[in-house]
This record gives sequence, structure tokens and C-alpha cells, in this order.
Amino acid sequence: MEDTKTDVSSLGEFGLIDLLTKNIEIQNASTLLGVGDDAAIIDHFGKQTVVSTDILIEGIHFDLLYTPLKYLGYKSVIVNLSDIYAMNAHPTQILLSIAFSNKFTVEALSEFYEGIYAACDEYKVDLVGGDISTSYKGFFISVTAIGEVTPNKFVKRSTAQVKDLICVSGDLGAAFLGLTLLEREKNIHLETPTIQPDYENQKYILKRFLQPIAQKKIIDYFEQVNIIPTSMIDISDGLSSEIMHICTKSNVGCRIYENKIPINEDTKQLAYKFGFDPTVCALNGGEDYELLFTINQNDYNKIKENPHIQAIGYIDSIDKGIKLISKGNNEYDIIAQGWKNFN
Amino acid sequence: MEDTKTDVSSLGEFGLIDLLTKNIEIQNASTLLGVGDDAAIIDHFGKQTVVSTDILIEGIHFDLLYTPLKYLGYKSVIVNLSDIYAMNAHPTQILLSIAFSNKFTVEALSEFYEGIYAACDEYKVDLVGGDISTSYKGFFISVTAIGEVTPNKFVKRSTAQVKDLICVSGDLGAAFLGLTLLEREKNIHLETPTIQPDYENQKYILKRFLQPIAQKKIIDYFEQVNIIPTSMIDISDGLSSEIMHICTKSNVGCRIYENKIPINEDTKQLAYKFGFDPTVCALNGGEDYELLFTINQNDYNKIKENPHIQAIGYIDSIDKGIKLISKGNNEYDIIAQGWKNFN
Repeated sequence: MEDTKTDVSSLGEFGLIDLLTKNIEIQNASTLLGVGDDAAIIDHFGKQTVVSTDILIEGIHFDLLYTPLKYLGYKSVIVNLSDIYAMNAHPTQILLSIAFSNKFTVEALSEFYEGIYAACDEYKVDLVGGDISTSYKGFFISVTAIGEVTPNKFVKRSTAQVKDLICVSGDLGAAFLGLTLLEREKNIHLETPTIQPDYENQKYILKRFLQPIAQKKIIDYFEQVNIIPTSMIDISDGLSSEIMHICTKSNVGCRIYENKIPINEDTKQLAYKFGFDPTVCALNGGEDYELLFTINQNDYNKIKENPHIQAIGYIDSIDKGIKLISKGNNEYDIIAQGWKNFN
Repeated sequence: MEDTKTDVSSLGEFGLIDLLTKNIEIQNASTLLGVGDDAAIIDHFGKQTVVSTDILIEGIHFDLLYTPLKYLGYKSVIVNLSDIYAMNAHPTQILLSIAFSNKFTVEALSEFYEGIYAACDEYKVDLVGGDISTSYKGFFISVTAIGEVTPNKFVKRSTAQVKDLICVSGDLGAAFLGLTLLEREKNIHLETPTIQPDYENQKYILKRFLQPIAQKKIIDYFEQVNIIPTSMIDISDGLSSEIMHICTKSNVGCRIYENKIPINEDTKQLAYKFGFDPTVCALNGGEDYELLFTINQNDYNKIKENPHIQAIGYIDSIDKGIKLISKGNNEYDIIAQGWKNFN
């Protein structure tokens, strides 16, 4: 990109919106009317509509010192699509609202939208609306994701049954270490500007934090092998917090086995280097955007062949509590960390 | 309300969400699953889904010095419902995301939500989801409104036809004067704190700004008399800006007659008091949330009996330009003011 810096006010609101949305090509038959009117029109043709929204606030959810704007745009979409997949549904549209201070140029916003469109393109969703505003300070992002699901095939958090198997997709803890690494290198760089960040061999870890994956493949797999999970949630706040949601809402307890929690080898090595327990990173780290779900035991054969799905425990009656069974075979209560930004 | 001040951190994220959403009663059959999961599930049962989103930023869209939080919550919903009505559709659900700094107490947020629920109750829409976060500075509100429309009865901005009549609901310019009045009294009060605001006889003006109305009644009326407007938009940025949108998107021109523009008597009086031309307030003021729409001339008899609808001009061919015919019978080009916060 050329190093031009165009002030947003030179385009005005409508000029800016035109610039940022002029290349949209609608990809879904359900998108009857997209950007450019008071509202968008969607027809899911007999399917049910799924809708979710997330906000990302500068200084709380992201740090522009180490988050390239394109990655930020990409991730803003992914975290929302993740919520749609977590209902066993498929995303079809998004709406995007942003507010930004006058330090943002047209080029910076265009870079942010490049990331938005890259995610839209990859997951075949249409950007159909939004809002755009200035702010006095800080960059605010609000994304609403819309999807569709075959009537009554959606999967809630509150329907796990005793004896169900608890499963998780992918691996956990890497995103938290990616964030920790970026924060650490930022602080070193701020203290000693001559030292450049050292990200040698940490590609996987950084990618997990900066470019998370929404679990379309897992939802596709469910359809392929004809599984409907009995409950499901995406892992945005860490395994502990999410299993607590499933158990509390379903009125059940659980047993999770520490030695079954999937953790990538790079994650383990970096955790040790930082002096962290990898299991704690997986339990409390968050931002992995993997799926945590329960299935009937009879469906075990359908998932055991999939290398991206791991059974990590089972649902028990509520009186048994919400427990982690450690590698040393001790029982610990799982405690939700809630969301760090409220502490 | 008691003057208790409870710190948000004492509840945590989930406790706060529970407190703010515990009394929700679902009002629409289309709301299959509301707050409390990764996403909400909606089934419009054969109707098409309409979706729109707006953000409101402290210091840009509202000033907490003179906006009670309950009114702010109420208005945040109304401005979004207005976009759904502007498609000739009916709102059914909203999602609400907020981010707030640590100066906000649980009581303050509860007051804000009181306004949200008051609007939801009045317009029979369900709050079905959202997100909640802290911010370093400022109060940030994002509302997504979802509605339904009979297949292909939605009305766009881009379909006005030459010879159509241009109509507007209600009256214009009052909200701008309400804002001007509040700003003026704030400045007087800041300069001389012993002087209290003087809002004598300005109830109508203030209500128009602080408690706008979404035009459900007009949409209901269209259905009742069997009209489908040929184009429609809600008036958020002022009549000039909105008629420009309709003309530009429809590739037509227009004639609007100054003496036909509906302006309330209180609005006129206050405009004169401030030294403003009431017509300019109506053209450029914004925030009225009335509907601007075009109809086929054959439908004129259907609207002329409705005291809340006024024909103000007609659509002409594009080469005739976008014109205001003044009381003195002079022609002026209508110029869009765009959106002030980009200047």
C-alpha cells in the first residue's frame, strides 16, 4: 500500500461508506438487499434465522500497537461467526459498525475493511449493513452476525444430559500465549526501543491469537456424519468458563480429564518458557474460538475418527459438581474466571 | 430510585447481564430463543427478515449532561426501529451492545435499561441478545434491530418514479430545536451555574428530541388503506439529506414546496426566538425520525384524509434537478448537509 494519508473528512460520511463498500459482491441467495438502504432484507427460505453480536473496544479487546488493522478486521468477523457456528448454524450475513477518532485515515480504515472482506470471502458471508461514526477517543467495533439453521436443529448451551461425552475441537491455550507473547514483546520494546520483537518459531501461537479460525469444518462434519450435539458453546473465555456455562444452564455436573485436554506442542513449550502450567492456559486463557460440545455416548464412534475432535470427559449429575481430574488423579473444582475486563 | 451506587465489578459480567435481563418476557412468536446463548434464534415463518444497526457514541450522538439515561436507552431503540419501519416492515427483535467506563454504576446502567425496556414494551419487540464491556472512556451503544415484512413488500430508497408525490409524516425541525435549546441552556448553566435551565413551554420541542417516536402508526395506516409507497426513508439527517438520497438512488429529480413542509407552531416560534429560519431547521435539522416517502398519484386520495401525512412535492425527471420552491416562488437547489459529525 502506498503511504498516502487521506483525512476522512475529505470524503465525508457517504463518500467514505461508498469507498469502503463499493466492491461488495453478494454471495448468498438469502441476501435480497444489502448495504445502502435503511435496512437489509434477508430471506432464509424456510430456515430459521440465527443472530449474534459482539463488540471490540480499543484498549480492552485489542491493542493497536501490535494488532495490524487488517488482522483486527478479520478477527472482528471471525469472533462473531464463531457464535453462529456454536448454535450448529451457518453464518450468511454480517453488519459492521465502527467509530473511530480523527487519527484514523482513509487508508487505515481501508486496511481494516480488507480484513473484514477477507473473512467474509473465506466464510462466504455478505456484509449487508452497518453504521460509521467518529469518536472522541478510541476505536470501537460492533459486528452483528446473522446465520441460518434447519428448523429446530439449533443447539443450545442448556441441553446437556447426564452421561453425555464432553468434546472439544482443535487445541486450547495457544491464543492466550500469543497474547502474552505480544504483550511481553511490546513492554520490552517500550522499555528498550532498540530491541526488536522476537517472534522466532512462534508462528502457530501468534496466528492462533491474531487470525483465529471459526469452526465451520466442525459444523460441516456434524452434518456429514449426522450428529446433532446435545449442547454447544464456543470457547471465547476459556474452557473453565464455558463448561461452567453448559453445566449451570443444563443443571448438570461434569468430569473433565486434564490428560485429555488438547494442547499443541508449541503451546506447551512456550507455556513452560513463561513459567505457566499449560493446563491453566487452556482452562482460563480464552480466545481460542474452538467449540465445546456434548454428544450422546452412542455418537462416540462418529467423532473418534476425526483428529480435530477430542473427548475430554463426561456430564455427571449436578450433585457431583463441576470437576477436573488431574493427571495425578486428584479432583479439583473448576472455577469460572468470568471475564477479565471486569476486574 | 434509591441513591445507592453499586460498582459494576461487584457483580461481574455474568451477574450484571443476569440483573439487566432477568425480567425479559418474550412477546413475539418469532423469538424462538432469546438472551443467554451464543446467538438468538428467530423464525419469521415465511416472512422476510429486515435488519439494521446504529451506533450512538457519547460526545458525538448524545451528551449525558442533559440526557437522562432512561431517555437515552429509549431513544437508542427508537432510532433503530425507525429504520425498520422505513422499509415498510415491522420490528420484532433487537440486540443491544454497550461499553461503559468505570464511572457507570449498576444503578446508572439499570436506569438506561429501563428506557430500553420501555421502548421494547411500547413497540412489542424482544431484546434477544447483545454484548457488554467496559471502555476506557465514554459510553458506546450499538443496537441492531430485526424485523419482518411480507415477502417483497419492502420499500427501498431507490424506486421513486417520475410524477410520484413526495410525502412526509408528522412535522419537522422540532428535534433540532430541542437539541439547540438543551445545548444553549447547558452552556448558560456552565458559565453561570446559579442560573437553572429555562424549559418553560418547550415540552413539545424537548420531547421531540429526547423521546422521538418511531412511525409504526404510519406503516399500520399504509396496510389499512392498502398503499405501498414507491420509495421510503426515515428522516434522521434532515429532509434535504433524505430527499437527496431518494433522488440520487432513484435517478430522478424533485420539486419540494416550502409552504407544504409541515412545521409545528411551537417549532416556528422557538426558531424565530433563536433567529433561525424554520424551513432551514426542517431541511437540515435532523433527528425527527419521521418518514419521507413517495406514492403513486393514484394513491393521493388514500393519504389526504390522514392528518399525519402531508404531500410536499413531486418527483421530476433527473435533468430538472433537486429543487425547493420557496414561498416567494423561487427555485433553489437542495444541498445535502451530510452528517455533521464528520466536519
